[in-house]
Amino acid sequence: MKLGLLQLNPTIGDYAGNLQKLRAAYLEACRRGANLVLSPELFLCGYPPRDLLLREDFVDAGLRAVEDAALFSGPVPLLVGYVDRHEPRPGRRLRNAAAILQNGKVVHRIYKSLLPTYDVFDEDRYFEPAQDVAPVTIAGRKVGITICEDIWNDADFWPDRLYRFDPVQELVVAGADLIVNLSASPWHQGKAAMRLAMLQHVARDENVALAQVNAVGGNDELIFDGHSVLLAPGGHVIALASGFAEEIIVADVGAAAHPATAVHAGLSSVPKEEHLHDALCLGIRDYVQKTGFSSAIIGLSGGIDSAVVAALATHALGPEKVIGVSMPSRYSSQGSRDDAERLAYNLGIRYEVVPIGQPVAALEAELAPLFTGRAADLTEENIQSRMRGVILMALSNKLGALVLTTGNKSEMAVGYCTLYGDMCGALAVIADLFKMEVYGLAKWINRDKVIIPVDSITKPPSAELRPDQKDQDSLPPYEVLDAILQHYVVEDKSLDEIVAKGFERSIVRDVMNKVIFSEYKRRQAAPGLKVSTRAFGMGRRVPIAQRYKG
Amino acid sequence: MKLGLLQLNPTIGDYAGNLQKLRAAYLEACRRGANLVLSPELFLCGYPPRDLLLREDFVDAGLRAVEDAALFSGPVPLLVGYVDRHEPRPGRRLRNAAAILQNGKVVHRIYKSLLPTYDVFDEDRYFEPAQDVAPVTIAGRKVGITICEDIWNDADFWPDRLYRFDPVQELVVAGADLIVNLSASPWHQGKAAMRLAMLQHVARDENVALAQVNAVGGNDELIFDGHSVLLAPGGHVIALASGFAEEIIVADVGAAAHPATAVHAGLSSVPKEEHLHDALCLGIRDYVQKTGFSSAIIGLSGGIDSAVVAALATHALGPEKVIGVSMPSRYSSQGSRDDAERLAYNLGIRYEVVPIGQPVAALEAELAPLFTGRAADLTEENIQSRMRGVILMALSNKLGALVLTTGNKSEMAVGYCTLYGDMCGALAVIADLFKMEVYGLAKWINRDKVIIPVDSITKPPSAELRPDQKDQDSLPPYEVLDAILQHYVVEDKSLDEIVAKGFERSIVRDVMNKVIFSEYKRRQAAPGLKVSTRAFGMGRRVPIAQRYKG
Repeated sequence: MKLGLLQLNPTIGDYAGNLQKLRAAYLEACRRGANLVLSPELFLCGYPPRDLLLREDFVDAGLRAVEDAALFSGPVPLLVGYVDRHEPRPGRRLRNAAAILQNGKVVHRIYKSLLPTYDVFDEDRYFEPAQDVAPVTIAGRKVGITICEDIWNDADFWPDRLYRFDPVQELVVAGADLIVNLSASPWHQGKAAMRLAMLQHVARDENVALAQVNAVGGNDELIFDGHSVLLAPGGHVIALASGFAEEIIVADVGAAAHPATAVHAGLSSVPKEEHLHDALCLGIRDYVQKTGFSSAIIGLSGGIDSAVVAALATHALGPEKVIGVSMPSRYSSQGSRDDAERLAYNLGIRYEVVPIGQPVAALEAELAPLFTGRAADLTEENIQSRMRGVILMALSNKLGALVLTTGNKSEMAVGYCTLYGDMCGALAVIADLFKMEVYGLAKWINRDKVIIPVDSITKPPSAELRPDQKDQDSLPPYEVLDAILQHYVVEDKSLDEIVAKGFERSIVRDVMNKVIFSEYKRRQAAPGLKVSTRAFGMGRRVPIAQRYKG
Repeated sequence: MKLGLLQLNPTIGDYAGNLQKLRAAYLEACRRGANLVLSPELFLCGYPPRDLLLREDFVDAGLRAVEDAALFSGPVPLLVGYVDRHEPRPGRRLRNAAAILQNGKVVHRIYKSLLPTYDVFDEDRYFEPAQDVAPVTIAGRKVGITICEDIWNDADFWPDRLYRFDPVQELVVAGADLIVNLSASPWHQGKAAMRLAMLQHVARDENVALAQVNAVGGNDELIFDGHSVLLAPGGHVIALASGFAEEIIVADVGAAAHPATAVHAGLSSVPKEEHLHDALCLGIRDYVQKTGFSSAIIGLSGGIDSAVVAALATHALGPEKVIGVSMPSRYSSQGSRDDAERLAYNLGIRYEVVPIGQPVAALEAELAPLFTGRAADLTEENIQSRMRGVILMALSNKLGALVLTTGNKSEMAVGYCTLYGDMCGALAVIADLFKMEVYGLAKWINRDKVIIPVDSITKPPSAELRPDQKDQDSLPPYEVLDAILQHYVVEDKSLDEIVAKGFERSIVRDVMNKVIFSEYKRRQAAPGLKVSTRAFGMGRRVPIAQRYKG
């Protein structure tokens, strides 16, 4: 039996476009001899559709798309992910579903059993879970059809299970000897190797062949990495699709397989910066293009953050689609101005200079009567940052290009950023990378030749909003800050637990206070590309008006 | 049997403060003869704690708070809402729980059965539902204890049920003749009367006495209205607490009751603007105070939106805590300037004028070389709006007062607002009021004397960002726009359904396109006080990068 795995990139709500893509890929897989073709979870509407699901007409359009897809299906069954109604009620109104299409008809429907509600997921908001599962006979073989989370609850693999029920085990007990899984499994660093290990464990543990087809592409904060896979019983790898790109795999379930450990080692041996780079470029490209734009504007300070974002955007969109803007003030060092210009030259992008001195002075003159007798403070620093925001947005409005923001996770965490200032923009490209990770990525970008000026990497980081300002005047060294933030923000560790790891209590306390206090800034931040297990954004939902300081 | 209903206003995460408030109120209810005292859902941590629940130390602190509360409990049982661990797993890690405290000890624990995941709710993200329910004998009476949503699934009341199971019916079948309900039920317009009707239906249908204690207070977007109630079997009203204020009710389950219809009519007869006004003032006051501030800054354009927000803030915080700022440009009419000044005078608030002409001109001069050959467009309008944003934020930074934004729901829906411009601020006070509702509220505010200048209400609305600009140049009349938005945004109706209600297709199509296109602005908007069944914010989760235009 040959399986066709369609690792495709849908656009949310683009039924016509997704259908067209599905049709071409299905026909290609059939031509290549597939006996069963699989597409990703909710492929017809794209994932995650979120509250578009509350629109009856959106669901209707999806149901029509299933019928349309059935019309082009031939003798080779096509498994397609879609949203079905749940009737009769009571219960949630919808189901996360898969339909088997064959010879012009829907021949079978399967529903998702396990509905994730952690992190970025809200599936219980919309869907009623399946009440039971059973294998389906396809081409003489008993196939257990599962949807994404259904395969993530193996009792032996997970020490900490969220669901009482394991659909895979149930299907195997009922005679399935091939498990297929339709997925839209978002990426974070390390996820591809971890997901493969988990799938291999299931194939080995249950002694079944296993095929997972995963979506690829960026949708707002989320990046789907693909890495679809076909495993032999025992977990050996028959075929593994590439990451961060569309691909059609057609492979025989009985074909020769590579030892799991070797493939796993191969996936793990890719430098983590390479996956990160590919993921972020995909996230940028899809956000810009799926929102109907083609070009991007980036404020270039001469520092490392804006340099990395500009390099990523240039790779993602092409140099002719990126504009770098330097907005110097009297506090901007000549070195920083030179670094910004050099970067633009290295990338081959358009470069503009718009000084902020005059407008800032004019604004401060109007404010002076109200500020009499009050010392200069953060206010004046924020005015500079916000004037730059106004400039970038004016260029965006006039030129029709999206502004990419350049703040990193360390800054966003402790509020070392200006709301409506450097936080202005449509997409926060590196908002989920700690500062030390930004350094790592910059060095990787420079691996063959200098793209990011060496000075941007080696000089002490500074916001350059007052004379001789350095980040480390107000923050612990980034090695320390990032480690504390990893424990506090990503792992939800307590003050005592973090101190027990060897950090100074007063520093940890101060970092925690800064994180708590700056929640209001993050609530108004641009969507940020998620690359960690815990990113700011839809996967971290914290009240602003609250007094828990623990 | 006398019940004590503690309608209190917790602060999220303020265990010490909430405990202190609970203790004082419990002792007061005991002094007034209560035999059983009830507090709102999750009172100890405040509602909604959201992802603070993912912190083990936050849950531990809550469990310690239950023990602390038990220590001050005497012979009169106290029912308190808290977060419990769910053990043993698998399943979600926590439970939404209530403990019965008596004579220094926790004597019983009850868990919530129905976990809402629609609108603003995410309870399945954290909690495992109760597996079964049973009445508890208290003071010789079989009491059915329920938590919020548990009482919202009556098969006869709801045509469209989200849950298969009705805990209330189960408890009554098991012999309960008193149902108590611990709630944190957020308000929207019409909710108080609707909730009372639903509770009366349950009391009548099941023929049981029923006590609901509801939280009161503002928490970010959400406003809890109180209106706690004690009903006799059959639904007659024994006691009804006030709305939008803390109150302790002590009343006998066997006391004389008022006919349900009369009380219901009384609640329905309150002018809707009065509830709206009280709700918004509570929302402002709690947001400002719970975030540790005391004063507010509002940009006064002379228009109706900023006038209404200023009037609400002045009522909520006191005139000495509100600063109005006029930021005129050459497009600001003398009438608008006068209206802004007159409003500030009427309210008795501090009034400042900061003209934007010079800084805007200085900025445009710097941008001119890049804009050569391009016509003036929205860019120049946005620059003015954003310069005002910079000014308001500078004043906020320097004076330590929160900026309140003044955009209404009609503008926010169609994107008739400037991101980082008039959208700047900590809290969007009227973001969930359509423009016509703003007019209604303005007239109500002026019911006894003119507070909002009559001209601000009667003149045609204008953003005054170019000569002779009127809102109606780019938008349908607000009566039409608001009606279309009600169907599209609040009711999720389709284009065809809206057209069938008598609106012109091209206008509906244009409004829908504007709503879809401006999703990116709303994603970065300040939290807005929710007063409708469907507000922008956490209760409406829509992808930005999507192509569904239906």
